[in-house]
Amino acid sequence: MFSVTVRDHMMIAHSFRGEVFGPAQRLHGATYVVDATFRRADLDDDNLVVDIGRAAEQLHEVVGALSYRNLDEEPDFAGTNTSTEALAKVVADRLAHRVHAGDLGEGARGLSGLSVTLHESHIAWASYERSL
Amino acid sequence: MFSVTVRDHMMIAHSFRGEVFGPAQRLHGATYVVDATFRRADLDDDNLVVDIGRAAEQLHEVVGALSYRNLDEEPDFAGTNTSTEALAKVVADRLAHRVHAGDLGEGARGLSGLSVTLHESHIAWASYERSL
Amino acid sequence: MFSVTVRDHMMIAHSFRGEVFGPAQRLHGATYVVDATFRRADLDDDNLVVDIGRAAEQLHEVVGALSYRNLDEEPDFAGTNTSTEALAKVVADRLAHRVHAGDLGEGARGLSGLSVTLHESHIAWASYERSL
Amino acid sequence: MFSVTVRDHMMIAHSFRGEVFGPAQRLHGATYVVDATFRRADLDDDNLVVDIGRAAEQLHEVVGALSYRNLDEEPDFAGTNTSTEALAKVVADRLAHRVHAGDLGEGARGLSGLSVTLHESHIAWASYERSL
Amino acid sequence: MFSVTVRDHMMIAHSFRGEVFGPAQRLHGATYVVDATFRRADLDDDNLVVDIGRAAEQLHEVVGALSYRNLDEEPDFAGTNTSTEALAKVVADRLAHRVHAGDLGEGARGLSGLSVTLHESHIAWASYERSL
Amino acid sequence: MFSVTVRDHMMIAHSFRGEVFGPAQRLHGATYVVDATFRRADLDDDNLVVDIGRAAEQLHEVVGALSYRNLDEEPDFAGTNTSTEALAKVVADRLAHRVHAGDLGEGARGLSGLSVTLHESHIAWASYERSL
Repeated sequence: MFSVTVRDHMMIAHSFRGEVFGPAQRLHGATYVVDATFRRADLDDDNLVVDIGRAAEQLHEVVGALSYRNLDEEPDFAGTNTSTEALAKVVADRLAHRVHAGDLGEGARGLSGLSVTLHESHIAWASYERSL
Repeated sequence: MFSVTVRDHMMIAHSFRGEVFGPAQRLHGATYVVDATFRRADLDDDNLVVDIGRAAEQLHEVVGALSYRNLDEEPDFAGTNTSTEALAKVVADRLAHRVHAGDLGEGARGLSGLSVTLHESHIAWASYERSL
Repeated sequence: MFSVTVRDHMMIAHSFRGEVFGPAQRLHGATYVVDATFRRADLDDDNLVVDIGRAAEQLHEVVGALSYRNLDEEPDFAGTNTSTEALAKVVADRLAHRVHAGDLGEGARGLSGLSVTLHESHIAWASYERSL
Repeated sequence: MFSVTVRDHMMIAHSFRGEVFGPAQRLHGATYVVDATFRRADLDDDNLVVDIGRAAEQLHEVVGALSYRNLDEEPDFAGTNTSTEALAKVVADRLAHRVHAGDLGEGARGLSGLSVTLHESHIAWASYERSL
Repeated sequence: MFSVTVRDHMMIAHSFRGEVFGPAQRLHGATYVVDATFRRADLDDDNLVVDIGRAAEQLHEVVGALSYRNLDEEPDFAGTNTSTEALAKVVADRLAHRVHAGDLGEGARGLSGLSVTLHESHIAWASYERSL
Repeated sequence: MFSVTVRDHMMIAHSFRGEVFGPAQRLHGATYVVDATFRRADLDDDNLVVDIGRAAEQLHEVVGALSYRNLDEEPDFAGTNTSTEALAKVVADRLAHRVHAGDLGEGARGLSGLSVTLHESHIAWASYERSL
């Protein structure tokens, strides 16, 4: 099994609802360093998992659509806690949609899976892994 | 599949028995930077894998019980080599016990697996992965 | 010249005023990984720059007073851009105040300087350095 | 499941053929920071996944055979794109060969799998995972 | 004293002349992770050391002009060893030229110094520091 | 001003004397990731700060003489606290001695300064800087 990972980041504001979150119920924010990993069993004709330039470009668009925003005011997240693990799924699902739409190139249709890790600090991170 | 990871560390002394260990048969020590990863298929009602505050707190207690000690003199490790991989299992098993005891909250009972990585230097680390 | 550095972090929301900031004029947020470095020419009687436990504890209190907050609503920052470099100075000056107040121990009075680095992502960070 | 990872690096020149590579079709180069991970279900009699000294030594020989070379002129790679993912497989397969040849010690015959990650920069890396 | 650092990277081929270089006399290559640090005593009217967006953009142009190239064939480096430390000076001097030309904005004219660090691997890096 | 840094590590046991050390008064240990930085104003005839191969080799010998040892039993450290900052000075002074003895090559005699950083964990490190 092969994989390729590209890294980008996003800076957002948000707050959480629920006692479990303690002081994080207040409006605060985070830098998420975002790693997107693409997997497949065999390489394509160019000896690649995916065109890394296009993968980086698509990841940049996905995180760009979330960056410099207060997620509490984004309709997509109304009524949900935008926890690190939940946002990892959002980024992964949006990338998966782009893979299926052909935005990462025809070769990317051979991808079998995808995982996304969001690092919220030097001591905490969360991941979501899915098939394609 | 979702996961959340928290990082802590511990500083211990120990020695190894067996020719394979070369100079590490002498009493020496290590800083282990410890990553504990918790996994589950679905998020809980708060949109979490686990209450990250409690996860960090429980990991801190587990590494605290090993920290600033000479493992050669700990009854728990009598007659065993406290290799990095063996200690990864010790930390993972102790965390698993706490999950089952409810110390990470009721929500944590939905966890399906756990892995622990101990980084012994910038060029070597070891992991142990188990189900819950 | 000796130095000791301790690392902690804080997660905040804020926005910037001024065209130069582009999309960062919107309310967003950041995780700052914070490194505080203490300097002196000679070690104290315990062979230390500073009691690292107290240094970590004081840094934790300083970043704790900023954490999980919207800096736009903090009176201390009214009318100012809380840029990474400006916040590095805030953290450094608050630590310096604590050094002078004896909060890092009597030995810490021998410190000659202090610098603080705030990492806002894996590709950008800012520092402020001052004497004590 | 246990694993142990050792890190080394190699510095090579190469070029790629195919429009997808853009400017990387020109002769250029890379530092690959190489992580080799060895896996097995149970520890050996010394409480080890593998003799970490021998693992590091064998990895060093494998990357040494590729280091300080122009891969475009290496017969082994004639007519192939030496992408990061393809090189991860080369390193993994060469290590697997050494495991089977007994170069990592008799204990290493108990290994069940191997993965290799090549970091080409702070924002991109690739992996190949295989059984043993 | 304040500073701001931005990180980028470049991938190049080159070779060295001189017995001291051993196997690095052969054509090989490197990824350089490049950190550019800008310094000044006081912040500008926006509370900034430099517009970080423009700093990142200018650094990207400077490293872009060196990327995906065989430095042995670049006229600028004819007859010189493009060691990591020498390249750090090249990047720093080119950035300094851009600061003086106003490419980082009028505010950047208040900068007093600049340093550039090139990381050639996880175990070696080199820097060059200069005034502005 | 130019600099070159090489990284290595050492794993030691030790204990501290003095109430300020709390639980670290017990025998424990540490991995120190060691960065040695060599400085000079101008490059040598090969365009180098120092022969990086020899620098790495000399650093490896210096940390090797401390590795896999209980520092409490080393005559060199009798009656002293082997704090991270104190050990940074030990490593720096031993490297300086080797520079003066010609062990890093004749070119290294042009070095003007040296600093050594010991990372004891992901959240704490200490440095010592000296002239040559």
